[in-house]
Amino acid sequence: MEKEVKNLLLDLSQLISQKSRIWISPYGVEKILRAIKTTSDQWMIIRISEEPINVVNKTLEILLERKIVKVKNEKIYFTKRGREILKDINLEKIVKPECRKCEGRGINFKFDSKLYSTFLEIQKKRPKPLKKYDQGNVTPQTTIARVLLAMSHGDIENKEILILGAEDDLLGLALALTKKPKKILVLDIDKRLIDFDNYWAEKLKLNLKAEVFDLRRKLPKDLIGKFDVFFTDPSETVQSIKGFILKGIATLKSPGCVGYFGFTFKDSSLKKWYILQKILNNSKVVITEILREFNFYENWPYLEETKSFKESAAEKLPDKTIWYTSNWYRLVTLPGFKRINIDLLKYKGKKFYNDIENSTS
Amino acid sequence: MEKEVKNLLLDLSQLISQKSRIWISPYGVEKILRAIKTTSDQWMIIRISEEPINVVNKTLEILLERKIVKVKNEKIYFTKRGREILKDINLEKIVKPECRKCEGRGINFKFDSKLYSTFLEIQKKRPKPLKKYDQGNVTPQTTIARVLLAMSHGDIENKEILILGAEDDLLGLALALTKKPKKILVLDIDKRLIDFDNYWAEKLKLNLKAEVFDLRRKLPKDLIGKFDVFFTDPSETVQSIKGFILKGIATLKSPGCVGYFGFTFKDSSLKKWYILQKILNNSKVVITEILREFNFYENWPYLEETKSFKESAAEKLPDKTIWYTSNWYRLVTLPGFKRINIDLLKYKGKKFYNDIENSTS
Repeated sequence: MEKEVKNLLLDLSQLISQKSRIWISPYGVEKILRAIKTTSDQWMIIRISEEPINVVNKTLEILLERKIVKVKNEKIYFTKRGREILKDINLEKIVKPECRKCEGRGINFKFDSKLYSTFLEIQKKRPKPLKKYDQGNVTPQTTIARVLLAMSHGDIENKEILILGAEDDLLGLALALTKKPKKILVLDIDKRLIDFDNYWAEKLKLNLKAEVFDLRRKLPKDLIGKFDVFFTDPSETVQSIKGFILKGIATLKSPGCVGYFGFTFKDSSLKKWYILQKILNNSKVVITEILREFNFYENWPYLEETKSFKESAAEKLPDKTIWYTSNWYRLVTLPGFKRINIDLLKYKGKKFYNDIENSTS
Repeated sequence: MEKEVKNLLLDLSQLISQKSRIWISPYGVEKILRAIKTTSDQWMIIRISEEPINVVNKTLEILLERKIVKVKNEKIYFTKRGREILKDINLEKIVKPECRKCEGRGINFKFDSKLYSTFLEIQKKRPKPLKKYDQGNVTPQTTIARVLLAMSHGDIENKEILILGAEDDLLGLALALTKKPKKILVLDIDKRLIDFDNYWAEKLKLNLKAEVFDLRRKLPKDLIGKFDVFFTDPSETVQSIKGFILKGIATLKSPGCVGYFGFTFKDSSLKKWYILQKILNNSKVVITEILREFNFYENWPYLEETKSFKESAAEKLPDKTIWYTSNWYRLVTLPGFKRINIDLLKYKGKKFYNDIENSTS
């Protein structure tokens, strides 16, 4: 019997890989099945699976066809037939032992209560996320946790810091509120965010400058090699890795400088993670941290228009629970690190925000 | 003035790199100086610096010679001259915003209270750490957090698990106490630990088998490709990476399998981390997590005999506060991953437990 179950998982993994054109192992399939046992909400199944949304949606489609799962009142359940077929796997629920006090990050986001409460007030007035810029902001608790993590590394005080896009998270503004950095420059394509940052910078006399910039373009030469630390949160295509992360590295002054960025399993498979790590290793930077589910994203208004929704099994919008999370990388440059500053607008036809693994842009 | 400070940090970084023969950047030097401002305890300076112990000790030696720091009552302080020289850096203390409830891991180690209390009792009777095996165990909270993290990934239930050494942490035993794995095999060179594990396995009817094995040797063929998950916590030489981590990977069944191991900044520089990551990338595995300060080590009885103590500035043994921490890696195998199972005893003269960056073995 055990062999049959193994074969079932193997068959499913091959079929899903073929249909979604994204690799998944039998272990990945088992985890999706366990996620279905853990929750009936399609968005939480995605979160718990830690597999790309497109893969999970394709899996659910196949399981529905085979009548292994069913949809009832916009919820997903195993059918009787499904439970019968799967009974030999001895599927267990996935436990969630994260610390509730710190939302599982290990960082007390209320550590600096004044910073936290000030930021909480200011961010309420932030511009709403736009689909055209692939926006979707992290929670204010996430933004503050990013600031505190960097402080605990000594990466903020007296440092010259560059933010490459994703200022819908207001990270540049939050860093400036600490009054610790020597200088912060925010580059973002969205004029609304630039105006928002500059308004608060002037009002509160912060060491922050924000400028409209399209990061697909080459960075101006006077930014190369000028910063101690960068932060970014790119769309997850190989083009975006080059456009945001490698450009960030190019702006760093010398060996020993630092970069932070987010990366998900929602829009990226293990294979894309591997490519990312190869690119970083080839650039002569070392990864010092990959923190799981560090970034919590608020639900964004245009989800209904994205592939992740349109191809979903239950076609139900998420409730207020956080389902889209991402992991947070920290890297340090080594002697001989490479500065790559390319113009992505030259690569016509290549997708910047989208690839086959991406479903939320 | 700022330029002078920059030059001072640059000069110091070059001198320290030369004398310790381990690379450190001016940012690393700045962080050591900030650590001295944060605490006067030499062991906590090491923890906060996140630089190799040998580098921190060499730095303190140089700063003592230059009368920038002084030792008083076994504590380390800046001298008046030191404060004068450094006043333009505007050195700030390093903040510690970790969540106190979960010790900064983001995992509630009391999540399964029965598991926690049972393990807490059993581990009190564990054999004491021995220098000859480079032992030094993690706290019971750490061991349980490792178990819970793996459970939250679905890496325990019904899995065949291999523990490669470091069973002084009693991780194999703790995993077995959950009664979730299909099978656990523990290999360790220390017969006392093997007997301890087998005693409890028999007494509590656990799915655990422990065998004496010297991991410098090639693994027996019948272990290659037979496990779903491995755990290890190697000494930190390139030889040990091959002896423990690559051998662990060799025992995994297929793509999608998982490995966990610890790695520090205490006995390894950023450059050794880079080499580790290159080796992993070349083996076609992807790193999914690097969790900072996940592992807390209890102080071990032979510290006094190690280089880390003998070359320390204050020559004071640590109090009960945790100072030796390490980071916790999780990796996943990809299609085409490499199984490397070499005999390290053939490499005579190569050091297994020790290299130039290692000071606690």
